[in-house]
Amino acid sequence: MPDPYRQSLSSQYAAVRAHSRALVQPLSAEDQCVQAMPDASPTKWHLAHTTWFFETLVLQPYMPGYCSVDPRYAYLFNSYYESLGPRHARPERGLLTRPSLDAVLAYRDAVDSALQAFLHSADAATLALAEPAIVLGLHHEQQHQELMLTDILALFSRNPMLPVYQVLSSALALAQPSNLQWHFAAGGRVAVGHAGEGFAFDNETPRHDVLLRPYRLAKRPVSCGEYLQFIQDGGYRAPRWWLSEGWAQVQREGWCAPLYWRDVSAKPAQHFTLFGLQPLDWHAPVCHLSFFEAQAYSAWAGARLPTEFEWEAASGGLEQLGQVWEWTRSSYDPYPGFRPLSGIASEYNGKFMVGQMVLRGGSRATPQGHCRNTYRNFFPPATRWQFAGLRLAQDV
Amino acid sequence: MPDPYRQSLSSQYAAVRAHSRALVQPLSAEDQCVQAMPDASPTKWHLAHTTWFFETLVLQPYMPGYCSVDPRYAYLFNSYYESLGPRHARPERGLLTRPSLDAVLAYRDAVDSALQAFLHSADAATLALAEPAIVLGLHHEQQHQELMLTDILALFSRNPMLPVYQVLSSALALAQPSNLQWHFAAGGRVAVGHAGEGFAFDNETPRHDVLLRPYRLAKRPVSCGEYLQFIQDGGYRAPRWWLSEGWAQVQREGWCAPLYWRDVSAKPAQHFTLFGLQPLDWHAPVCHLSFFEAQAYSAWAGARLPTEFEWEAASGGLEQLGQVWEWTRSSYDPYPGFRPLSGIASEYNGKFMVGQMVLRGGSRATPQGHCRNTYRNFFPPATRWQFAGLRLAQDV
Amino acid sequence: MPDPYRQSLSSQYAAVRAHSRALVQPLSAEDQCVQAMPDASPTKWHLAHTTWFFETLVLQPYMPGYCSVDPRYAYLFNSYYESLGPRHARPERGLLTRPSLDAVLAYRDAVDSALQAFLHSADAATLALAEPAIVLGLHHEQQHQELMLTDILALFSRNPMLPVYQVLSSALALAQPSNLQWHFAAGGRVAVGHAGEGFAFDNETPRHDVLLRPYRLAKRPVSCGEYLQFIQDGGYRAPRWWLSEGWAQVQREGWCAPLYWRDVSAKPAQHFTLFGLQPLDWHAPVCHLSFFEAQAYSAWAGARLPTEFEWEAASGGLEQLGQVWEWTRSSYDPYPGFRPLSGIASEYNGKFMVGQMVLRGGSRATPQGHCRNTYRNFFPPATRWQFAGLRLAQDV
Amino acid sequence: MPDPYRQSLSSQYAAVRAHSRALVQPLSAEDQCVQAMPDASPTKWHLAHTTWFFETLVLQPYMPGYCSVDPRYAYLFNSYYESLGPRHARPERGLLTRPSLDAVLAYRDAVDSALQAFLHSADAATLALAEPAIVLGLHHEQQHQELMLTDILALFSRNPMLPVYQVLSSALALAQPSNLQWHFAAGGRVAVGHAGEGFAFDNETPRHDVLLRPYRLAKRPVSCGEYLQFIQDGGYRAPRWWLSEGWAQVQREGWCAPLYWRDVSAKPAQHFTLFGLQPLDWHAPVCHLSFFEAQAYSAWAGARLPTEFEWEAASGGLEQLGQVWEWTRSSYDPYPGFRPLSGIASEYNGKFMVGQMVLRGGSRATPQGHCRNTYRNFFPPATRWQFAGLRLAQDV
Repeated sequence: MPDPYRQSLSSQYAAVRAHSRALVQPLSAEDQCVQAMPDASPTKWHLAHTTWFFETLVLQPYMPGYCSVDPRYAYLFNSYYESLGPRHARPERGLLTRPSLDAVLAYRDAVDSALQAFLHSADAATLALAEPAIVLGLHHEQQHQELMLTDILALFSRNPMLPVYQVLSSALALAQPSNLQWHFAAGGRVAVGHAGEGFAFDNETPRHDVLLRPYRLAKRPVSCGEYLQFIQDGGYRAPRWWLSEGWAQVQREGWCAPLYWRDVSAKPAQHFTLFGLQPLDWHAPVCHLSFFEAQAYSAWAGARLPTEFEWEAASGGLEQLGQVWEWTRSSYDPYPGFRPLSGIASEYNGKFMVGQMVLRGGSRATPQGHCRNTYRNFFPPATRWQFAGLRLAQDV
Repeated sequence: MPDPYRQSLSSQYAAVRAHSRALVQPLSAEDQCVQAMPDASPTKWHLAHTTWFFETLVLQPYMPGYCSVDPRYAYLFNSYYESLGPRHARPERGLLTRPSLDAVLAYRDAVDSALQAFLHSADAATLALAEPAIVLGLHHEQQHQELMLTDILALFSRNPMLPVYQVLSSALALAQPSNLQWHFAAGGRVAVGHAGEGFAFDNETPRHDVLLRPYRLAKRPVSCGEYLQFIQDGGYRAPRWWLSEGWAQVQREGWCAPLYWRDVSAKPAQHFTLFGLQPLDWHAPVCHLSFFEAQAYSAWAGARLPTEFEWEAASGGLEQLGQVWEWTRSSYDPYPGFRPLSGIASEYNGKFMVGQMVLRGGSRATPQGHCRNTYRNFFPPATRWQFAGLRLAQDV
Repeated sequence: MPDPYRQSLSSQYAAVRAHSRALVQPLSAEDQCVQAMPDASPTKWHLAHTTWFFETLVLQPYMPGYCSVDPRYAYLFNSYYESLGPRHARPERGLLTRPSLDAVLAYRDAVDSALQAFLHSADAATLALAEPAIVLGLHHEQQHQELMLTDILALFSRNPMLPVYQVLSSALALAQPSNLQWHFAAGGRVAVGHAGEGFAFDNETPRHDVLLRPYRLAKRPVSCGEYLQFIQDGGYRAPRWWLSEGWAQVQREGWCAPLYWRDVSAKPAQHFTLFGLQPLDWHAPVCHLSFFEAQAYSAWAGARLPTEFEWEAASGGLEQLGQVWEWTRSSYDPYPGFRPLSGIASEYNGKFMVGQMVLRGGSRATPQGHCRNTYRNFFPPATRWQFAGLRLAQDV
Repeated sequence: MPDPYRQSLSSQYAAVRAHSRALVQPLSAEDQCVQAMPDASPTKWHLAHTTWFFETLVLQPYMPGYCSVDPRYAYLFNSYYESLGPRHARPERGLLTRPSLDAVLAYRDAVDSALQAFLHSADAATLALAEPAIVLGLHHEQQHQELMLTDILALFSRNPMLPVYQVLSSALALAQPSNLQWHFAAGGRVAVGHAGEGFAFDNETPRHDVLLRPYRLAKRPVSCGEYLQFIQDGGYRAPRWWLSEGWAQVQREGWCAPLYWRDVSAKPAQHFTLFGLQPLDWHAPVCHLSFFEAQAYSAWAGARLPTEFEWEAASGGLEQLGQVWEWTRSSYDPYPGFRPLSGIASEYNGKFMVGQMVLRGGSRATPQGHCRNTYRNFFPPATRWQFAGLRLAQDV
């Protein structure tokens, strides 16, 4: 393997790892230790887990003589890999005041040093063997970078002090109003999924053909102002727009607006964000919706959610991509002929393929360069704390 | 509409309704009143609800001057139709010691008389308008006939007296052993879903083409003896075979065998059935599995579950159909271009299209003539009290 | 033991047992099978359990050659006697559609015959040994007679058909208004608890002296009309009147009136009773309160609840006793020197002596002759489905 | 009020406040932020709440012109005072990463400065008015000092890193073995409760006479070694020793030893402590028991728990007091003639008088000088995370 390759991998590694550190700059050790809810994780845990991932999938199998920083971390920072044995329970991640943030940062430094040394000194054959795990680790860390932001927002949103993650020097620029326009797609036999060059997760493969009917897709996501009309029309009180399970959730949880919106009738209406409490921007994409809300809105609007394949086939003609994750009407099922990765990484995606819905696109919290138009994000349909909205579709 | 048609509809109506009455013959008023668990309903409630369905969808809209038997029944026996207003909570159906079984049977008689009178006296135009609701009502009642059996089994299974629903005059004939044989299918572009003559639920439409890869499907379902090997190989203790949510369920609920199996190491091993406690028949299809167990078994067996379309496309070449419902690897999503029925019936199927898996085939508890090879049954993946097993599939 | 004694015991036995049968006359087999909630039991279960009590504590130990009616009943109808082995879980008593009501009534008949035979044929020494258990069994059955009524009311109250347990031939006579008058007690050293002749439960012993300060006790219980003033004054919205745990309960459960009261602002205001829905009688004692509500009312009224000893010491001077159980301010602790009964009966009372409050007096649902002024009834402080109200006390 | 008095109050204030600061020295900001469970509070919250107490009960009412440090703290750091309006939910105290520990320490400094200024400058009349609240605040802070230790132990006990709160320079000195000896008490009419000079909480008053039977009380608490015998004799598997609710708890929670004991069969057997994992000292008092366990042990040992009055009357003749809180057989009921404090402080004790058991004595975590022999500590009977054990009593 040529030196420029080692150099490139080393640079990518350094850049991704540095980005995680940059993201936590505004946070105190206390902020990074606490867990907002069982579904979220503390920032410190994210920092340690992504490090453990490199240690476990790269350094231990491929770097001769590598000695783990602390053998107890294997228990603490394993997320869900059953094949690696027992692990700390997810809802108790927030109890880990020790190891301290300083210790976790030292852990990162130690693993980074070892991994860089490995990148520069491993023989070519070993490096070739290790490379898929390294690249997977980088994409894995990018996924956690978005989760750090969703989880810190979830935490701050429950603090009456209304903490600000990022201070604005001036008011946010307002989104531009735009009429809803449609992208028409003829459908037919189209290829979906990943093939060829470049990284992709196993759940994006194999590439295969599907049959689509003609359809049209909104060129932009639904805006906050449009969603407000749904609310004002009594959308949260009318079971006819909702899937049965969604309606049960609305009633049980008392949902009446997107997760972080405050009193809608206040002037100005506000929502809680990483910039603290901010006025709602009516032309910006609506965000922090569950699949149930996205589906109900689309029914109320006389439309529907696109399938993930309609989305993927049309993705070249769409606008405002990457602002919010977009719920699709597709359950997260395996592609025909799907094979999980081998080894530990086999647990990465496949075992979650039930009870979840696919989201496509990416959000403002998604690291640059992380997404593809074949990318399949997935969450249970009641999930609201992700940066998720929707785009309308219709049969034609 | 010609008289033979009226006659035929009248006969079908009488036959389906009589079958419900026949099914409850072995049961006391007490048996029919109690609810085994929130997911199940009392037999008496099934008897009343299916009657309310005809009253509400046929007699009230189409029979001039029809007066409901008891206006309170609209509240008590509405299952889940939001458009018809508030209703008795599902988990409290078992509290309804009143109306008594006698009153419910009288309700059935009154509605049956009115409906037969309607069938014979309505003018042709009205009858033509009403006919889809009548036919839907009959298929609806057949669905509940199976549920009566699943629910009474669930109830009796929790009674230490081991009640017998149906007394056997002699031992059940044992199933014949058969080696596992495979049906090969070339895949390609195949049409699935219902079109043309005959009744189908809205969720089976529209008929449309899908693309399938070559595959093979077991000619018969997995047997109890085969499933026993999975158990004996530690299948319920090995997370690698399970979807993540399934494994959590196994641990939370302590699953270690199909729902109604008793101690597997006993001689003879027994399971609880509608015939009371019976020896397990090792060559009969395994039954009362959740999707999670079906999926785990298939992984352990080096195979997978078929998609619902693979199943449908191959259904002409399969054997032992109709013994157990067969879990598929397909989430219960809408077909492309799916449109729910109009009116009240719009809530029949569509609003449940999330979080459920499709089952195909039919079981011994399914009324004769009720099923089709396009029929889509559906339940959440943890459901075990249905008569459900599995058939293996593989890529070729 | 002289014949008149045998005769008397036989008559008492017959009378108590017949009263249970009389109580269930208005109920169908369905009514008697269903369990309103985990704390309540089905009527049929009460009928069987009280029978099992005589079989287990009298017939099996003392009647030579007695053979139990059905050995499975030992598992089904044991309530909470750990020393007798495992038993059917309390919240699942309502699943027992079998044995049928007929079988349970036959069980009663068989045990009654055997016990009467025993009473007439046992030798005097054996009868003397068995007599305490027989007498205990009769008082035990009387306790369950009241529970049958509380539990059937709980069941009917959740049925939208508003079933009537007892049909009124004419409207209930209204209670007479009476000004609140006080009974003054000097306190000092007073003896409390049971001693001497006559039956008492172990928890009423030993008789012992306590010291009381001077106090006064209302001559009658708080009336519905008085309690209405508390409601109208915002009592259910003002935390200051409530114990901390009571206030949490009010908010969690949304309490806003006694358990069976309907909309207070309706004209006439109604409550659900064994006679069906009835207008509230403002001068009758308020009923179906929890301890928390009784305590809050007393605080609002500038008074307090009496201790159980204040109540007992003054019970000779009080009026309207026996209309509602009266919550006291005393936790259900053992008396100094308390010794539980021996044998199985040791589990009768003592093991419940934590987390409960004492009630004194008796209610209209209490069988005649069952109560004493030393009688200690007890329930957890959040209990509302008993016939319980309160009487005010004050320091003087 | 004379200057020495001001000086004395100022010194006491400084000393108590400094002790809180000393207690948190070994803890990081992360340690102080996290909440181990809903019943516990973060250390930082304790530090802020005790400060808020002085601000609210002393500075705001009595110090002219005092301006609260941050008006939002009134919401965040109110524990349970309903009369002061809404407050942050207890189970969410651990979400408060802001205000930071530094901000809370600054809050303490600001209030301390103001309070010292007040102590030295207030006119005598105002100081006399304020003095009861100041003294209450000091005793209140001492109560929280013990809670800080119980809560940090609860937190560390759930961390697989086994954090050490206090590092031992050498092994702990072992307790001396001692045979169980008894203190005999004649009982009779004895006075209990607080009267006269010195501080006491309202729940210790009024002093009043009670009648006691003769009894004897163990001179020392039950030891770990004695408790081990109970375990080894199957105490946790034998329902006969347990109160019914305690037995249910044992089974539901899988209790099999005191809260922080590790595998009893290990050599050496260990328990988790503020000094980290330590060998069990068999002659030291057993600790971290619930009332249910204390009661079960006493029954197994052929003894019983003392009432709180037996304990108080004998307290002058007992040994090893102040090592562990001692569960009594007394429910936490109000004393005859009990009157809560007035104003805000009325919510201090009285509203918790239901569903709790009284503990007497004090533990090694109790601040010096905080306890009295009339002191009534109280917790629900299932509580295990307090430093609580037991002392045996018997009738004589």
